[in-house]
Amino acid sequence: MNSILLKNGRVVTADSDAVCDILIEGETIVSIGRNLSAEGAQVIDCTGKLIMPGGIDPHVHLEMPFMGTFSSDTYETGTRAALHGGTTTVIDFILQKQGNSLRSAFEEWSGRATGNAVGDYSFHMAVTDFNPGTKEEIKDMVAEGITSFKTFMAYKGALMIDDAQMVGLMQEVKKHGGLVTAHATNGDMIDTLIAQHRAQGKLTPLYHYLSQPEVTEAEASGRFADIANYTGVQAYIVHLTCEGALNQVRRATERNQRVLVETCIQYLVLDASLYEDEANGAKYVMSPPLREKKDQATLWAGINQGLVNVVGTDHCPFMWEQKLMGKDDFSKIPNGHPAIEHRLELLFSEGVNTGRITPQKFVAVTSTNAAKIFGLFPRKGTISIGADADLLILDPEKKHTISADTHHMNVDYSAYEGWELTGKIETVLLRGKVAVDAGETKIAKGYGQFIKRGKTAF
Amino acid sequence: MNSILLKNGRVVTADSDAVCDILIEGETIVSIGRNLSAEGAQVIDCTGKLIMPGGIDPHVHLEMPFMGTFSSDTYETGTRAALHGGTTTVIDFILQKQGNSLRSAFEEWSGRATGNAVGDYSFHMAVTDFNPGTKEEIKDMVAEGITSFKTFMAYKGALMIDDAQMVGLMQEVKKHGGLVTAHATNGDMIDTLIAQHRAQGKLTPLYHYLSQPEVTEAEASGRFADIANYTGVQAYIVHLTCEGALNQVRRATERNQRVLVETCIQYLVLDASLYEDEANGAKYVMSPPLREKKDQATLWAGINQGLVNVVGTDHCPFMWEQKLMGKDDFSKIPNGHPAIEHRLELLFSEGVNTGRITPQKFVAVTSTNAAKIFGLFPRKGTISIGADADLLILDPEKKHTISADTHHMNVDYSAYEGWELTGKIETVLLRGKVAVDAGETKIAKGYGQFIKRGKTAF
Amino acid sequence: MNSILLKNGRVVTADSDAVCDILIEGETIVSIGRNLSAEGAQVIDCTGKLIMPGGIDPHVHLEMPFMGTFSSDTYETGTRAALHGGTTTVIDFILQKQGNSLRSAFEEWSGRATGNAVGDYSFHMAVTDFNPGTKEEIKDMVAEGITSFKTFMAYKGALMIDDAQMVGLMQEVKKHGGLVTAHATNGDMIDTLIAQHRAQGKLTPLYHYLSQPEVTEAEASGRFADIANYTGVQAYIVHLTCEGALNQVRRATERNQRVLVETCIQYLVLDASLYEDEANGAKYVMSPPLREKKDQATLWAGINQGLVNVVGTDHCPFMWEQKLMGKDDFSKIPNGHPAIEHRLELLFSEGVNTGRITPQKFVAVTSTNAAKIFGLFPRKGTISIGADADLLILDPEKKHTISADTHHMNVDYSAYEGWELTGKIETVLLRGKVAVDAGETKIAKGYGQFIKRGKTAF
Amino acid sequence: MNSILLKNGRVVTADSDAVCDILIEGETIVSIGRNLSAEGAQVIDCTGKLIMPGGIDPHVHLEMPFMGTFSSDTYETGTRAALHGGTTTVIDFILQKQGNSLRSAFEEWSGRATGNAVGDYSFHMAVTDFNPGTKEEIKDMVAEGITSFKTFMAYKGALMIDDAQMVGLMQEVKKHGGLVTAHATNGDMIDTLIAQHRAQGKLTPLYHYLSQPEVTEAEASGRFADIANYTGVQAYIVHLTCEGALNQVRRATERNQRVLVETCIQYLVLDASLYEDEANGAKYVMSPPLREKKDQATLWAGINQGLVNVVGTDHCPFMWEQKLMGKDDFSKIPNGHPAIEHRLELLFSEGVNTGRITPQKFVAVTSTNAAKIFGLFPRKGTISIGADADLLILDPEKKHTISADTHHMNVDYSAYEGWELTGKIETVLLRGKVAVDAGETKIAKGYGQFIKRGKTAF
Ligand SMILES: [Zn+2]
Ligand SMILES: [Zn+2]
Ligand SMILES: [Zn+2]
Ligand SMILES: [Zn+2]
Ligand SMILES: [Zn+2]
Ligand SMILES: [Zn+2]
Ligand SMILES: [Zn+2]
Ligand SMILES: [Zn+2]
Repeated sequence: MNSILLKNGRVVTADSDAVCDILIEGETIVSIGRNLSAEGAQVIDCTGKLIMPGGIDPHVHLEMPFMGTFSSDTYETGTRAALHGGTTTVIDFILQKQGNSLRSAFEEWSGRATGNAVGDYSFHMAVTDFNPGTKEEIKDMVAEGITSFKTFMAYKGALMIDDAQMVGLMQEVKKHGGLVTAHATNGDMIDTLIAQHRAQGKLTPLYHYLSQPEVTEAEASGRFADIANYTGVQAYIVHLTCEGALNQVRRATERNQRVLVETCIQYLVLDASLYEDEANGAKYVMSPPLREKKDQATLWAGINQGLVNVVGTDHCPFMWEQKLMGKDDFSKIPNGHPAIEHRLELLFSEGVNTGRITPQKFVAVTSTNAAKIFGLFPRKGTISIGADADLLILDPEKKHTISADTHHMNVDYSAYEGWELTGKIETVLLRGKVAVDAGETKIAKGYGQFIKRGKTAF
Repeated sequence: MNSILLKNGRVVTADSDAVCDILIEGETIVSIGRNLSAEGAQVIDCTGKLIMPGGIDPHVHLEMPFMGTFSSDTYETGTRAALHGGTTTVIDFILQKQGNSLRSAFEEWSGRATGNAVGDYSFHMAVTDFNPGTKEEIKDMVAEGITSFKTFMAYKGALMIDDAQMVGLMQEVKKHGGLVTAHATNGDMIDTLIAQHRAQGKLTPLYHYLSQPEVTEAEASGRFADIANYTGVQAYIVHLTCEGALNQVRRATERNQRVLVETCIQYLVLDASLYEDEANGAKYVMSPPLREKKDQATLWAGINQGLVNVVGTDHCPFMWEQKLMGKDDFSKIPNGHPAIEHRLELLFSEGVNTGRITPQKFVAVTSTNAAKIFGLFPRKGTISIGADADLLILDPEKKHTISADTHHMNVDYSAYEGWELTGKIETVLLRGKVAVDAGETKIAKGYGQFIKRGKTAF
Repeated sequence: MNSILLKNGRVVTADSDAVCDILIEGETIVSIGRNLSAEGAQVIDCTGKLIMPGGIDPHVHLEMPFMGTFSSDTYETGTRAALHGGTTTVIDFILQKQGNSLRSAFEEWSGRATGNAVGDYSFHMAVTDFNPGTKEEIKDMVAEGITSFKTFMAYKGALMIDDAQMVGLMQEVKKHGGLVTAHATNGDMIDTLIAQHRAQGKLTPLYHYLSQPEVTEAEASGRFADIANYTGVQAYIVHLTCEGALNQVRRATERNQRVLVETCIQYLVLDASLYEDEANGAKYVMSPPLREKKDQATLWAGINQGLVNVVGTDHCPFMWEQKLMGKDDFSKIPNGHPAIEHRLELLFSEGVNTGRITPQKFVAVTSTNAAKIFGLFPRKGTISIGADADLLILDPEKKHTISADTHHMNVDYSAYEGWELTGKIETVLLRGKVAVDAGETKIAKGYGQFIKRGKTAF
Repeated sequence: MNSILLKNGRVVTADSDAVCDILIEGETIVSIGRNLSAEGAQVIDCTGKLIMPGGIDPHVHLEMPFMGTFSSDTYETGTRAALHGGTTTVIDFILQKQGNSLRSAFEEWSGRATGNAVGDYSFHMAVTDFNPGTKEEIKDMVAEGITSFKTFMAYKGALMIDDAQMVGLMQEVKKHGGLVTAHATNGDMIDTLIAQHRAQGKLTPLYHYLSQPEVTEAEASGRFADIANYTGVQAYIVHLTCEGALNQVRRATERNQRVLVETCIQYLVLDASLYEDEANGAKYVMSPPLREKKDQATLWAGINQGLVNVVGTDHCPFMWEQKLMGKDDFSKIPNGHPAIEHRLELLFSEGVNTGRITPQKFVAVTSTNAAKIFGLFPRKGTISIGADADLLILDPEKKHTISADTHHMNVDYSAYEGWELTGKIETVLLRGKVAVDAGETKIAKGYGQFIKRGKTAF
């Protein structure tokens, strides 16, 4: 059995901070201590480096079918890029096709992922058609290790379920101990605003933004929390972006409800002024859209208040040519933005280095909380004995610049082109193997495994 | 150097859960792993047991001067009892005497504690008279490792500062990176209600409760948060008991403020119906008083919402004879309740065993969060390399019964007499020494050290 | 021209209270004063009586088409019964048929009403299908004097519009200075709960109540307010029943929005315990259902807070035989409850006589506010010169008992059978004619006119 | 008996709007109607004019003792200026001297007012020292027709009572059916901020503003509401200026509490940018200070929401020379601003003419609501039979310019110098006498009477 010994790193987890060694045997961590030695082990000197749990990105869309094509990162390219950025596990979304079963969607998604992933992965199940048949399948999916069920409150006719389905789904998921998550925006309102803008010839990317005003997210977030509270199910809002939406979560606390919240890295560091650049605005067309400075402030505060629990990416990349499908009409721009590779370094540079959050909080929102919420804990999300040796080694002083020329995602532009960050992830281990080192991938496609998940323990 | 090897325990921290061994050398943890061995080490078999960080109780009053006498636990008896209950560090309150300096109070308190404590301890400084002189002393106290400053919004003429002093104190503490905490009740309102009840001959313990209605705490909590928000200082509310008060904290989140919250174990498990027993009500005379069932529900929810960060005790014991000073007048009953020894076992039995909170959350609210908030982290509050080997070993199945006959606090009654709990703390280590084992104290008075604290990193 | 002189009444309006005379010539009030005389005038001695503006009930359903039949009061019987209870003007709801035009519905409703009403009436237009065609008709309806547009957030497939239509409708109505009102309950959630109860064989009237829990109304009220705030239209919630819903309105005030609120008399004086009577529960099957005591407290408080502006009835009577359509299945019980005749006397007896509201507030919520909100002011809703002489004369001391045997509504049971009230409306004038006196109707069908309405001035 | 006949005016009250005549005999209105005639009556042609109830200003300080001098308007000059501006009744504040009785203060104030007032007046009693003696006097004051009790939460050592006194006072006032009002700002916080600014040499008027940040008012408003809610007394906040404070009132509605709110005209039309003018800033030194544009928006919205009930002035004029006492130190500038004469014309021009509020709302907030709240209704605050003939006649088109050269207040500058308003009050009647006409005072000092007040009926 191969063994690796990390020496003299500053080991940072959500609740510890210590300079020490870590010994890995096979896929797992077997010792943490001072002056560890292990015959035959590969030794990696981590002096001056931070060792942290590998990131968990619970919100990615790889090879997602879209208008006859796919989001541009495959399970291979996407999980590889994730590893380059320190993210060792991703959770992708299976999208049930309305009219079909959950099982068939699971099989379709598994078919694309199996044997192709470099990093570990799991699935959420997006229930887009809740009916007596799919109701029966909920427990089956839980048995398959898919314990979180995604709902879309937007995209009517394709992905959206209405509140009639929502209440039924929540009741069923609660019965089986699962979690319900939501893309919480009022799709109906948005559809009207899009149609109005198009009818008025307002077709630039700016109108993507103006078609999804804060209220569309705040309203749906409140509604989702209301229905969840009625059913008693544990609720989780994906990609929450704004003050209005977080305030709904805050107010829900007054009735003793806990609504879990994920934001995404872009909402913390980018803002809606980018839509004013007509030429490049398409790069930032995602849903919900980027928001205002005041919303960034809300999200950073939310992290420290313990109310924003997870920072993901909603990684959903499209090539510039794909983006150009909407060059004359914002509503035809494929929604999504590539970030799977940069989440951790962006958050470290903008969050930890600026003093906005502690290193412990950094680990909590990039890894540990997601592990606990999505039933991966304590196998993942922490550095402890018997846990998967999913680790990143970060040089906190090293400056580097983001560019499409150097990133590993399969997309031909970067949303952060030219950004200089402080703090570089240099080496990444996945289940005991060096997966990435000094910019090179050390493991092959197929190394990544499907991880069955258990229930929320947060 | 002595060494201890804990074998095969289930090591639970705020972010891990693993069966493994822990090796201690001298005062600190040096290795965590599987199949550890250490020549000459004392081996403790922990099979089937939980090993968790020693508890930190940030709210105790030992040997507190009171009406010519003292609270009945000395630094010796109090910290020893704490150790029996798994609490390895306590933070006591120095009470500045109005008119005198902070320094003189520090010296007085240090005088009582030094050489007498069995367990480790630190101090908060209660600033009861903020003036140009004490303003100058804030930075000195920070230099002494006293980084948290307590305020009383009640007890006019003895401990209370008014809002004029509050705003000045907060500004000064912020300047030096400290934390301001508050006993947040509207003392003026309470004084009137007490006087009215006494004038009406309403003298039983029930009127202690009725003199401190929920609004007195909710109002002051909101006011404290308001002033803190204005100054930008990090605020912490001690012994928060009720829905009205927590709702103030929840609403403060809407302006992006974070107010840290401590509740105490008794508010989670006892309620105000106890005041109806005229003979025994004095045992529960504390301030704030016990509340209603709905408030218990709020506090448990608050823990899981991440808004109630710490569970302390406000341990302030008095002998029954001392309590009897108020047998004819509730306002003369010394306020306080003995709990330093039972906090962890009560919370484990009522919280973890009932499924209300996870074991990780248990550790967070009994130890880790307090360590981070009060500048003891990562030396204390966690199980990691180089950290103080402050550990408790708990048998999660073992049933036991609380009684004044068997407890170690220097007080002749128990507020929990006859309660049967599941989960017994059997062995406790403090800085690498077995402090308590099988009901016996293994270390002597004087072992406990004063711990200098740094700044909040939460 | 006929003239009537009311002598020595206590004239109470929303902002006055004076003992004096009122002289009416033709249809209007021409003098208010002391010691008025008028040759040839019919003199009515009002000594000891209150004279108040005739009630305006802005929420009634007369001869409403329903499952091949109609609500049991025609324009004749309904407006006559209204007059007996002091209500001189009602506003009925035209229900657009999905797929058809607003105009055709207007014509259908006008066809039923024209020539048949005893009392005055107007129409709201319920837009159940907002599309490019009906969008064009909004301004036409405003021109016809129909300035308020009703929306249903429930009854999918029949009356409900989705949020896509809602936002468009609000924008169009705002453009023309109109008002948007809503039946604000989450119909989708309710549909699921009904289906579940039916599937479980839970078929008694109690399950009507349990299928529309408070959250279904609170959620929709908040959503309606949110969308209205986005569009800037003046919003009005009909038949608001509960704390959860009013709290949404209260919270909306924090963003400087005003949402107007109507409750109905039954929600102030009846509660959900009536559903436990299986035999009679059907009498109280209405939507939203009756609520709890705490909700009554909220509504009374809301009136005095100025946040509940109108007390209507949602009068929609069905004969007991019609109600029996649902004797084996609550979901088949025609929804609605007869109250058009008793609104004022119930509110006077339960509100003014108990001291809960002032007589001025009574007038405001039964008449003046509705007149201002719905564009009838100052022609109606007040006692002033030139205003329609729509007046009621009430003996504040007189006790009487409600019974189906004596009421004038065309329905064979009373929801208030046997209730003894204090305060009897003895004489009612409509546009200068004695319409009701001593229990007798003095005017004939066809006297009632369609009243064109202007814009909100509140 | 003299009689006056107002012909063809547009009579506007809070709930009516009609072109008609008003006949006055002696002091009261005896007829309202069309084509009225009265032999011997003085006829005033009101064609094209608005006739509205004389204004009631419930917040003025005339001849208020201050640092050895007095506010510059006497009862004569102040009530005369009020009349010129259409305000026929003012309510002044008696300030109890700490240590002395309420009775002695009442006598002192009565001594200054009796025989000197031109317009009608009443008194609030400011209880600055609540003790067993003054407690006994509450019922006596109610018997004297002083039913509202003012509290100061600021000005420690002079006017402020603490919360211990507040709760006792509220309980006593509630017992006697009175109303408690508050200057709701946190005086302690303000005292600290003033002292800090002075210590730092920050002495210009801008620092007056910065010493009373929004939180000082929001906090105290919430505290006042909290204590009032506990006692059940009817509460009224004077001169509320800001969003933070109104939000406290809005949130209090959620517990079914009603807190009545007065703002003052200056807070609606002026803002804090005026403090940047060092030379003239002293003119705007009042407490609370002027606020921001967002606060103006809140107040206008609050009026239409029914939550801001009254627009007063807090008229407290000082000559420029008096203001200059603070030319080198903002804290020595006498607080106050002259507005008694301009309240109605400013609100009409800025509120009614701009469409922000209806003419009915104008009457409600300038007259009717105050009459109801302060127990003057229906004698004052309305135009009805038997009511005092307190009327103003306003030309809604007429433009005029405010200037110290032409105003009638005894103060040598105007806070609105050069403002051009649309809408001029041309004639004012007080109890049936023409008091002001075409800029001339027609009644003499001594005509104004002390008006005993009853209880709130709102
Ligand atoms: Zn999404
Ligand atoms: Zn997504
Ligand atoms: Zn305390
Ligand atoms: Zn304490
Ligand atoms: Zn309805
Ligand atoms: Zn209806
Ligand atoms: Zn004031
Ligand atoms: Zn004042």
